[in-house]
Parts: sequence; structure tokens; C-alpha cells
Amino acid sequence: MKMEKIKQEIMHMFHAWRILFGSLVKWIILSIVIGGVIGVIASVFANLIAWATDFRMGHMWMVYLLPFAGLMIVFLYHVTGQAKNAGTDMVLMVVRSDQNTMPGRVAPLILIATALTHLFGGSAGREGAALQFGASLGNWLGRKIHLNESDKRIMTLAGMSAAFAALFGTPMAAALFPMEVISVGIMYYAALVPCMFSAFIGERISIFMGVRTLTAPYPVEEVPDFYGIAWGKAILLAICFAFVGALFCVMLHIFEKQLKKWFQNPYLRVFIGGVTVVLLWKITGTDTYLGLGGGTIAQSFEEPQKLWVFLLKILFTCITLCSGFKGGEIVPSLFIGATFGSALAPIFGLPVDICAACGMVGVFCAVTNSPISSLLIAFELFGFAGMPYFCTVIAVSYLLSGYQSLYKAQKIVYSKTENKYIDRNTTS
Amino acid sequence: MKMEKIKQEIMHMFHAWRILFGSLVKWIILSIVIGGVIGVIASVFANLIAWATDFRMGHMWMVYLLPFAGLMIVFLYHVTGQAKNAGTDMVLMVVRSDQNTMPGRVAPLILIATALTHLFGGSAGREGAALQFGASLGNWLGRKIHLNESDKRIMTLAGMSAAFAALFGTPMAAALFPMEVISVGIMYYAALVPCMFSAFIGERISIFMGVRTLTAPYPVEEVPDFYGIAWGKAILLAICFAFVGALFCVMLHIFEKQLKKWFQNPYLRVFIGGVTVVLLWKITGTDTYLGLGGGTIAQSFEEPQKLWVFLLKILFTCITLCSGFKGGEIVPSLFIGATFGSALAPIFGLPVDICAACGMVGVFCAVTNSPISSLLIAFELFGFAGMPYFCTVIAVSYLLSGYQSLYKAQKIVYSKTENKYIDRNTTS
Repeated sequence: MKMEKIKQEIMHMFHAWRILFGSLVKWIILSIVIGGVIGVIASVFANLIAWATDFRMGHMWMVYLLPFAGLMIVFLYHVTGQAKNAGTDMVLMVVRSDQNTMPGRVAPLILIATALTHLFGGSAGREGAALQFGASLGNWLGRKIHLNESDKRIMTLAGMSAAFAALFGTPMAAALFPMEVISVGIMYYAALVPCMFSAFIGERISIFMGVRTLTAPYPVEEVPDFYGIAWGKAILLAICFAFVGALFCVMLHIFEKQLKKWFQNPYLRVFIGGVTVVLLWKITGTDTYLGLGGGTIAQSFEEPQKLWVFLLKILFTCITLCSGFKGGEIVPSLFIGATFGSALAPIFGLPVDICAACGMVGVFCAVTNSPISSLLIAFELFGFAGMPYFCTVIAVSYLLSGYQSLYKAQKIVYSKTENKYIDRNTTS
Repeated sequence: MKMEKIKQEIMHMFHAWRILFGSLVKWIILSIVIGGVIGVIASVFANLIAWATDFRMGHMWMVYLLPFAGLMIVFLYHVTGQAKNAGTDMVLMVVRSDQNTMPGRVAPLILIATALTHLFGGSAGREGAALQFGASLGNWLGRKIHLNESDKRIMTLAGMSAAFAALFGTPMAAALFPMEVISVGIMYYAALVPCMFSAFIGERISIFMGVRTLTAPYPVEEVPDFYGIAWGKAILLAICFAFVGALFCVMLHIFEKQLKKWFQNPYLRVFIGGVTVVLLWKITGTDTYLGLGGGTIAQSFEEPQKLWVFLLKILFTCITLCSGFKGGEIVPSLFIGATFGSALAPIFGLPVDICAACGMVGVFCAVTNSPISSLLIAFELFGFAGMPYFCTVIAVSYLLSGYQSLYKAQKIVYSKTENKYIDRNTTS
């Protein structure tokens, strides 16, 4: 009888192991497929955006055509039946299963629309595109090979990781970000292996294909002693970053609402938006705020930026994205954080590079409510020396940014101030 | 009317900010108290254990008294009414509110019992003690200043972070570990600021008080190129680590059950356990397996260990802890991982330091089901160079370790293989 019981337990354990092991093998194979396919496409896309940016910078008259590029984008979304496309929010809803379908045609659509936005100088990121086409392709692949619901969702997450990793060159953060961002307080650990593997494969391919990651690593090596007055400064900095992050989210939501109200026709809306960006470009007399702005981010680590730079970037980005152009909000967030942190450096008496770095991850954390990804992206971009600063800034910024978010579909599942399940929508 | 609405919205936002800001100020102040008080006690405790270890090594005849030290420990738990004390599991239950009370006297009790275990050469860790007295003191402080239920739980988590940070010198992982380990798949982000701040303060105090962190940083700087064959090796390594981690958990549970069955009298049980450890010590003819074993962990990074070292450590630790001695399972897990990884290095043709490092975090992840903390502890102990290895090993080890855990009270809230809420108890 006793032998029988032990035998039974061992059989049970073997059975459990077989399932886990099968899951591992399955996801390694699927990750190679996802990471490979999406890595290649993302790299081509990244190179296309880089080429578009270079071409535009050599032919600045193209910016005048931005309003017409906008018409083109709206038209493309219209004819493909995606006029009501919710962008990255849709991805969040699909993974959380509030919504079931994720049309495969979203992938080419968002790629072309983002490329057009950048070719003609709209102020936007490109990771919105990455997350959307990664998710869309992952989901599509999942359907093609007839995976079940749960696995399809994991494929969606892995696709996002692969695309994010290829574009940013930060595989670890890319793996965790989709797992963390959908429902704040819940970690989709079932996707850990698929996301991690897809991300590393995607990143590897992007290196191989010579992708110029916008956020090239900016190692921050010499940091002032943390314990003491600098700690207090880091807290104050974090308060500023949380405020600016929340401001950016609020402005995006206000612009979206107001522009839709004022110009109900999407063609008119995007055209007016394009014209406004062109006007602002001529008024400010600089092309700092057009496109991704990678150059300015890099500059922020060298010398303090002016205090109004981040405000103008918020304005440019809100008009571009809310009038109907495509791209993403994350690179603008990084731009805003870097230039704002850089501007605060002399005021706080801290080195400019650590302030810019803290600004980038502080604002990123505030707008995405994803502290773990923020921490990991900090290490991948800036190295480990600034660790206590990053920890402080991210923790405080997470708390203070409240229930603001870039993504209306994001849910704050556990309260930020209490040990309590709230499952609350982010506010717009 | 419209002005009224905008005014209302602004008032609403200010109100939300006031709550968040108040929460920040409150937790900064409380973190200074928790981090300060617990940092000092944890440092005194760590120095006491270090002294006990040194003293024992100078007077090896003391190991013969181990069975009597065991009697003393059981007696102490008996007279304080804690004979049924569930150890670290109790902490998990308190935070998850399955159980409400956390007697303050647990703190001195676990400290003394752990010190006795180490003074007389039991094979155990010390972070079980750290987590328990950190939690107990945090909870006690929370009650003294009349915090509400939610805040008391956050205090408990912050206390654990402070104690863990002071003992291990890894503040970032210490902050995340209590938030992550209680319910796998849920992140107690409401505790982010308190845990982060308490951890950094606790760590700072321990540096100031000259604590000798067992796991002194072992920088792993030269790692072989990851992409290619080494990646495959990392996966195979991870499978081994997951298996050993699960084995350790299973052995602990079996020993606990069987020893309780065979020797129902706790005095007899602990005495027999002590005698067995003494016998094993004489048979093996080495004191490698007594106490913490920090020296052996360090050696694992220098030269390959024998393949049976980890097995003997499992045996020594299971007998020590399951017969009634106190300490913790984490340092033994790190010992097991380091020596096992080190032993595998020549077989896999990889450098010994990266294998030992991967072994430590791979086994840690397998027994705690806490991938984020594992990743962060890896960076804090071994630096950032081995990042792709750590990511791979941790992800695979997390998946394959299944529903085994050091802590019976730990819950796996989301499935490891499916995107599904399961709220499952770990298996014993």
C-alpha cells in the first residue's frame, strides 16, 4: 500500500514534469519562429524609419507635405476598415481578452502609416507601431497554427517583445514590458519563456541587420554618492518626472477629445493637425521636435537642455498623434524625460547624464505604470552604476503618477496606495 | 457651465494628488523608522551570526553539543507558546491576510534560535530569521502606531525588505522579493516605495555597522559570447537547476513529514536530528556543510566543486531544518546552486564563475518562484555582464520548477503554462 502511494506520487510528478517540459520545448520552437519573423520585419521597419528620417533631413521641404501624408494615412485606415482602430489600446484589450479579434492587416497598416508620419516629419515614436504589429503578427501566427486561446495571447505578448527588442535593443526590458503593462499589478509569468526568448532573438537579428537603435546606450558611469543629500534630490526629481509624465498623459487625452470635437471629419482633423505642426515648425525655427528626436536625446546627456524643450515636444506630439498620425508615445516620453531631466540638472546640482537618465526612466514609468520594465530598461541603456537613483526615481514616480496612463485600456489591478484589489481603469 | 466642469476636474485631480503625495510623505517617514530600527537589529544579528560562526570554527568540539542546542530551541518555542509556529509561511499568510496575528515575540525568538543553530554548527541559512523578524517587527510597529489593515501589511513587507537588505547587501532585490514571493503572479506594488526605501536604509546601516554579507559580490565580468551554442548550454543548465531546486523542495517536505511521523516528540526529534548531523559531520570528515557555508560558495567561483557536494548540502540542511533547528532555506539554496553550477562547468565547457552564478540564481528562482527578484539579485551580486545568461536560466528555471516551493503558504496565482488565474497552493 505504501509503495503504491509513493509510486503514484512519482508518476504524478513525472506527469507534471512532462507538461512543463513540453511547454518549454513548444515555446522554444515558437519563440524562434516569432523572434525570427518579427525580428526581421521589425528590423526592416526600423531601417525604413531611419532612412525616412535621413531622407527628410536632407529634403526639409517635405515637411510641408505633412498634411497630405495625413490624408493618406486616414484614407488607408478607412479603406481597410480600421477607421475606428484603437491602436495600442486594442492590443491590451486582446491580451486581457476584453476583445477577441486582432486583424492581421493591422500589421502592414501601422508600419506604412508610421513610416509616412516620419518621412514627412510628424512628431512621434515608432514603438506604438512595433507593439501593434508585433502583437498582430504574433496573434495571426497563433491562429494559423491553431493554438488555443491562452497560447494565442501568449503569442501576442511574445510578438510584442520581439518587435520592441528589435527596435530598442533592450531585450530584457522588452521581454518584461508586455507582461507587465497590460494589467498593472499582475505579471503574465506564463509568457516569461516565450517573451524572453523572442526578445533575445529579435534583438540579435536587429544587430545583425544593422538597426540603429534610437536609444543607443548612454552609459552613466560616474554617479555622485547616493546616500545623503543626493537621495533627497532624487526624490524631488522623481516628483517632477511624475508630474510631467502625468501632464503628458492628460494633454494627450485632452487633445484627443478636443480635436475630435472640433473637427469631426477625420480628413479635416488630420489636415489641420499637419498644418499646425508645419506652422509650429516654422515658428520655433528648429526641427528638434520633428520625428523621433534621437539627436536631442543624445544631446541631453552632454549638456543641459532648455526648460521649455520638453513642453514644446509635448505640444508637437499631442497635435501629431491626436490629429490622426501614427507612431507611438514612448519615444516622445523618453525625449520629454531626457530633456526635462537634463534641464533640471544645473538646478539640482547633479551631473547632467544621471539626471537625463533618471528623467527618461522616471517619465517612462509614470506614463506606463511599469516599474520593473523601467528598472530593466535603465540598466540596459545606462548600465548599473546609477542603480540607487533609478530605484528611487522609479518607485516615487510610479506612486505619484497616479492613475494616469498612455493607454486608456490599461488597468490598475491593485491600488497604488493600498494593499487592495481595485481593477480600476486608468483615467483619461 | 463648462468652466464649472473644468474647475471640478482640476479640483478632482488636486485631490487625487494630495492623497498620493500624502502617501509618499507618510511612507518616507515610516520607511526611515522601519529601515532604521530593523537595519540596526538585523546588523547586530548578522554580526552575531558571524561571531558565532567564527567562534564555532575556532572550537569545533562545540558541534558535539548541537543536539542539546536543539533541545534548547524547542524549549524556547514551547515556553513562548510558539510550538506550532509556521516560520516564514506564517509571514506569507499574514500578508495575504489568511491569518491576522503576528506575535511580536517571534522576533527575539527566531533570532536566538538561529544564533544557537549557527553557534553549534547546524546547516541552515539566516534569512528565514531575517524575513520573520523583519515582518514581525514591521507588523508590530504598524500596530503600535495604529495603522489600518492595509498599511500594517505594507509595514510587514517593508520590514522584510529592510532585514533582507541588511543581511544580503542587495537592496534592490530585497525590496522586490517580499512584494513578489507571497502570491506568484501578483506584484504588491503598493509597497514599492516603502520596501525600496526601507531596503536602502537597511543596507546602508549594515554597511555602516560592518556586516559581512555572506554573498559578497562575486563580479562575473568575462562571459563567453551568448548567441549560438552557449545559449543552448544555458537552457540545459537551467533544466538542471530547476530539477535540483525542485528536488530540494521535495526533500524538505518529505523530511519534514517523515521526521514528524517517526518522532512525534519534538525534543526527541530535534535531538535525533542533531545527533545525525554530528554523525554525518564525522563521516564526511569535513565542516563544509555546517553553518552558512559562505566559504564554499566563494570557492565555487574559483574552481569546479565536486558533484556530490550539493547533494550532501541538501541532506545536511533537510535534517537540520526539519528536525527543529532554525535559520532559513535561502542561503542553503544559494550554496546548492553555486556548488552544483560550479560542478557542471567543466562538463558544459563554460567558465566556472558564470556557471556558479547561474546556479545560484537558477536554484533561487526554482525554489522561490520569483523571477524578478532572481534577476535583480543576479545583477547586484554578479554585475550586468552575464545578463543574457541570467535571463535565460531564470526564465527556464521558473517554468520547469513547477508548483514546488520552499514555502507551503506561497500561492501560484497565475498558471506557469497558461494565461489563466489558478490561485493554486504550491505542492508539498
